[in-house]
Amino acid sequence: MLKCYGYAAYNSLTPLRSHHFKRRSPGPRDVLIEINYCGVCHSDIHQARNEWNGTKYPIVPGHEIVGRAVLVGNEVDRFKAGDLVGVGCMVDSCGICPECQDHQEQFCGDTVFTYNSLDKHSGKMTYGGYSNQIVVDQRFVLRLSDKLEPAAVAPLLCAGITTYSPLRHWKVGPDHKVGIVGLGGLGHMAVKFARAFGAEVVLFTTSADKIDDAKRLGANQAVLSTSPEQMQQHEQSLDFILNTVAAPHDLDRYLTLLKRDGTLCLVGVPSTPHPTPSIDHLIFRRRNLAGSLIGGIKETQEMLDFCAEHNIVSDIELIPMTAINTAYERMLKGDVKYRFVIDMASLPKQ
Amino acid sequence: MLKCYGYAAYNSLTPLRSHHFKRRSPGPRDVLIEINYCGVCHSDIHQARNEWNGTKYPIVPGHEIVGRAVLVGNEVDRFKAGDLVGVGCMVDSCGICPECQDHQEQFCGDTVFTYNSLDKHSGKMTYGGYSNQIVVDQRFVLRLSDKLEPAAVAPLLCAGITTYSPLRHWKVGPDHKVGIVGLGGLGHMAVKFARAFGAEVVLFTTSADKIDDAKRLGANQAVLSTSPEQMQQHEQSLDFILNTVAAPHDLDRYLTLLKRDGTLCLVGVPSTPHPTPSIDHLIFRRRNLAGSLIGGIKETQEMLDFCAEHNIVSDIELIPMTAINTAYERMLKGDVKYRFVIDMASLPKQ
Repeated sequence: MLKCYGYAAYNSLTPLRSHHFKRRSPGPRDVLIEINYCGVCHSDIHQARNEWNGTKYPIVPGHEIVGRAVLVGNEVDRFKAGDLVGVGCMVDSCGICPECQDHQEQFCGDTVFTYNSLDKHSGKMTYGGYSNQIVVDQRFVLRLSDKLEPAAVAPLLCAGITTYSPLRHWKVGPDHKVGIVGLGGLGHMAVKFARAFGAEVVLFTTSADKIDDAKRLGANQAVLSTSPEQMQQHEQSLDFILNTVAAPHDLDRYLTLLKRDGTLCLVGVPSTPHPTPSIDHLIFRRRNLAGSLIGGIKETQEMLDFCAEHNIVSDIELIPMTAINTAYERMLKGDVKYRFVIDMASLPKQ
Repeated sequence: MLKCYGYAAYNSLTPLRSHHFKRRSPGPRDVLIEINYCGVCHSDIHQARNEWNGTKYPIVPGHEIVGRAVLVGNEVDRFKAGDLVGVGCMVDSCGICPECQDHQEQFCGDTVFTYNSLDKHSGKMTYGGYSNQIVVDQRFVLRLSDKLEPAAVAPLLCAGITTYSPLRHWKVGPDHKVGIVGLGGLGHMAVKFARAFGAEVVLFTTSADKIDDAKRLGANQAVLSTSPEQMQQHEQSLDFILNTVAAPHDLDRYLTLLKRDGTLCLVGVPSTPHPTPSIDHLIFRRRNLAGSLIGGIKETQEMLDFCAEHNIVSDIELIPMTAINTAYERMLKGDVKYRFVIDMASLPKQ
């Protein structure tokens, strides 16, 4: 086993703190990665606090990982020591089911997640990126471009692919008017991608103070969703809406903004159900209500290559490891533009 | 104005009875149709009893109309006297909006429905097919084949197109496993179409006594949806589900039967909302919840031509006009296989 150290939650109530733990030793198909940066995703908080149940303590969160390959197994043919690499939400899957064969590992019934999941090699829990190093099968390691600022690349591994994948799946492009609901870690990436794909982008937010920033990030229009007048101006005009808000809210207000055959796609998992949507809004315009979950590894690599080509990264606030508990509190208040990323050089060894 | 007679509801509570009324006189683009048969749709009951609100009395229901053109206006170029023709749920639309231009008149904001709608020519209400004759703009008249039994063709004009259209829109065909929920007027047509399109068809019903009949109608399998064991056998196996049940029910039980990227399409408008569906079932398999509404005129003609070519009609029970109130009561108990059709030769003149 490989000795590692990082930051962990020991239970659902107390702050995260320094933690020493072990990972499996690198095997012939593994890449050992020294972690440089790790993004802070809202699901880190949910799981650290056992809000989705099923958390095994101690838990080391983090699934937006950027680092350097420092050692590769003798069967590794896609990476070499020194490569700049990334790891996202998944580190393994069965590899043989129809979902895996179709490069949709996120839908494999046997997906191993980057943390709080059972490592099939060691039979122990997986631990995430709030740590000094990680061991990952090369099939789940992503290649990163040296052209982009690596700290700002980290959030692409979850927030990026979670928004890129549905925009691609529903073929968003020029001549489309696309709505993005919520301007947080996911929403700000969705605005950047939708614009890069050539769509006209309308950002919907409940925060008046995000209107200007939405336009700076690339939205053609920004709408205060609490204003019925502003909302009404977009009725039946949108081809596709990507809704990044996980908090329970009225979906009908967005369904009615869709044209005939439009799709409202949800990527936030609400902790309690949204109010029931009106089926009339689906039937009388043949609309769709859908959901999407991160993206497969092949598509994640495609997304990272697209970002390198189009100079797209996340807007981040770099923090030391010791600031993680303050960062969680600020995230719960929506006080981050738009993703915290931990500088792992700051990780205390004790 | 043209003197007509038929059967009407005079209020929401008393039985339908004989009624004399007027329609607009045929104009240059109109076809005057002598009605031979009219199907009885569940929405006739809803509207006769004002269950959707907005009913103007007296109301003459009926939008599954089969008859003979007896007179055509001098600008009518698509029909001649003597033609066997049909009329469905719509008799007019604006003709110029994007929906109309795209042959989707059912989604035009200005659709004129066959009954209980405002006739743009006369400024009076429209009256449906429980009557001796009707005047319809040739753009909304369908051509029928003499090869099929005309009484059994009537239900195709609503139940037929309502199920044909979504099966076509979502491209149901060979290699697809398709679920049909509910075996009534719509469901039994959906089974016939899905089989004709080459799909493997699974019928879901709450009635054990419909299992055998479902197979006779073409279902490869019939599932008692009240049996958790039977339902579980189809988990994550269906590409598409057409749900014809309007009564509020648990949609999650059907969402979980869909494969990744599958669609559950609803064509029944519930009078009170379904229980809120779980967004997790959408997100974790990228599934879709959708709705569909009848179909455009061009597609309705395509459906009728398809039926003539493949010898597809509705299973019907022919009734005299005077039996309509009994028929409504039987429909509310689910006691019809699978559509009542009124023989208009039975219509009393007084």
